[in-house]
Amino acid sequence: MANPIDFYFDFSSPYGYFAAEKIDALAAKHGRTVHWRPLLLGAVFKINGQQPLATIPMKGSYAKHDMLRSARWLGVSFKIPGKFPISTIAPCRVYYWLQTQDAALAKQFAVAAYRAYFKEDRDISSSEVTANIAAKLGLEKTTVLQALENPAVKERTKIEVDAAIERGVFGSPYIVVDGEPFWGADRLDQVDAWLTKGKW
Amino acid sequence: MANPIDFYFDFSSPYGYFAAEKIDALAAKHGRTVHWRPLLLGAVFKINGQQPLATIPMKGSYAKHDMLRSARWLGVSFKIPGKFPISTIAPCRVYYWLQTQDAALAKQFAVAAYRAYFKEDRDISSSEVTANIAAKLGLEKTTVLQALENPAVKERTKIEVDAAIERGVFGSPYIVVDGEPFWGADRLDQVDAWLTKGKW
Repeated sequence: MANPIDFYFDFSSPYGYFAAEKIDALAAKHGRTVHWRPLLLGAVFKINGQQPLATIPMKGSYAKHDMLRSARWLGVSFKIPGKFPISTIAPCRVYYWLQTQDAALAKQFAVAAYRAYFKEDRDISSSEVTANIAAKLGLEKTTVLQALENPAVKERTKIEVDAAIERGVFGSPYIVVDGEPFWGADRLDQVDAWLTKGKW
Repeated sequence: MANPIDFYFDFSSPYGYFAAEKIDALAAKHGRTVHWRPLLLGAVFKINGQQPLATIPMKGSYAKHDMLRSARWLGVSFKIPGKFPISTIAPCRVYYWLQTQDAALAKQFAVAAYRAYFKEDRDISSSEVTANIAAKLGLEKTTVLQALENPAVKERTKIEVDAAIERGVFGSPYIVVDGEPFWGADRLDQVDAWLTKGKW
C-alpha cells in the first residue's frame, strides 16, 4: 500500500486553493490518497520574518495578476476576495475537529470552505460564516460554534500546525510525496512526474 | 515586426540562469528576439524589505533542493556555487558596457558569466574573474577592468537597474511579452502559451 500524499495548505492561500482543486484527482491517477493538512501561515511568517505575498511592494500587485492568470491556466473558478488575506484559524479548527471523527467529511468541509472564500467571496475568518459552511454539510451549527471554543480542538490544531512547521513547511501549497517536498501550485507537473517515475 | 521579449535577470539567480539557457530558443520558435536586461536584485530587496531566497529560514534549504531538482527537470547543467548568493555588479557593468557597442557580444558574455558561476563555481563578483571571462571572448582584459571603473559605465548600469525597478521588476527571471509580465523559470510554459495564442 503506497503512502498517502501530504498536502499542506492555508485556507487564505489562492495557490493552495488551486492545488486543492487538483490534488485528489492527480493522486488517484497514481493509486494514491491525499492527507489534507491545513496550517496557519501567519505562524510560519512570524518565525521567518516573511510578509503575506499580497502585501509585499511590487511583488503584491504582480501576485494578484498571476493568481488570476494561473486560475484561468488551471481552469479553476476564482475571484480575489474583498478581504484578503485573512486569518484562517476558524476553518482550520473546524477541519481538525471533523478530521478526528470523519476524515472524508473533513475534506468535504475544506473544499467547501475554500470555494466559499475564493468563489463566493465569503469571509471564512468569521466563526459564523465557517459554521454556516459546516451546517450545509449536515452538521449542527451550534455544535460547530462550540467546537471552535473547545480547548481540545484548539490544542489539536496547535499540535498540527506546530508539526507542520517542525517538518519545514513554510508555504502553501506544500506537497510531500514519499518524503520529497514540492512547494507551489506550479509544481503539480513535477509531483505528477515524481509519482510516475520517482526521482529524476 | 514583433516586439522583442524583455528578459530581466540577476547573475546570482539560479532560476535566472535556467531561463537564460532556454529563452532565446523559446523566442526564436515564435519569430521573436530577446532583449537581455541584467539587474541587481540587492537594490530591489532593499526597497521591498526582502531577503535573498537562500538566506530565509526553512525556505532557504528547500530552495537549494528545488534549484537542483529544477535544473535536472529542465536539463540544465548546474551546481550550487561555494559562495552564494554574491554581488553581481561587475558582470552587470561589463554587460551594459558591451551592450552599447555590440549587443550580440554582450549576450555571449552574459551566457559565459552565468555558466562560469553556475557550472564552474567561479566567483563572478570578482572584477578579475569577470574580466577573464570577457577576455576569453576576445576582449582586452585591461580594457575590461578599466570599463568597470568608468563613471559612464557605472551610470549606464544604474540607469538600467533603476528603469527595471521603475517598471516593477522584483525578481529573477522576470520576462515581459508585449507588456505581460511573467516571474520565474516555472512560468516558461505560460510564456510559450502566451506567445502562441496571447491572453487566455
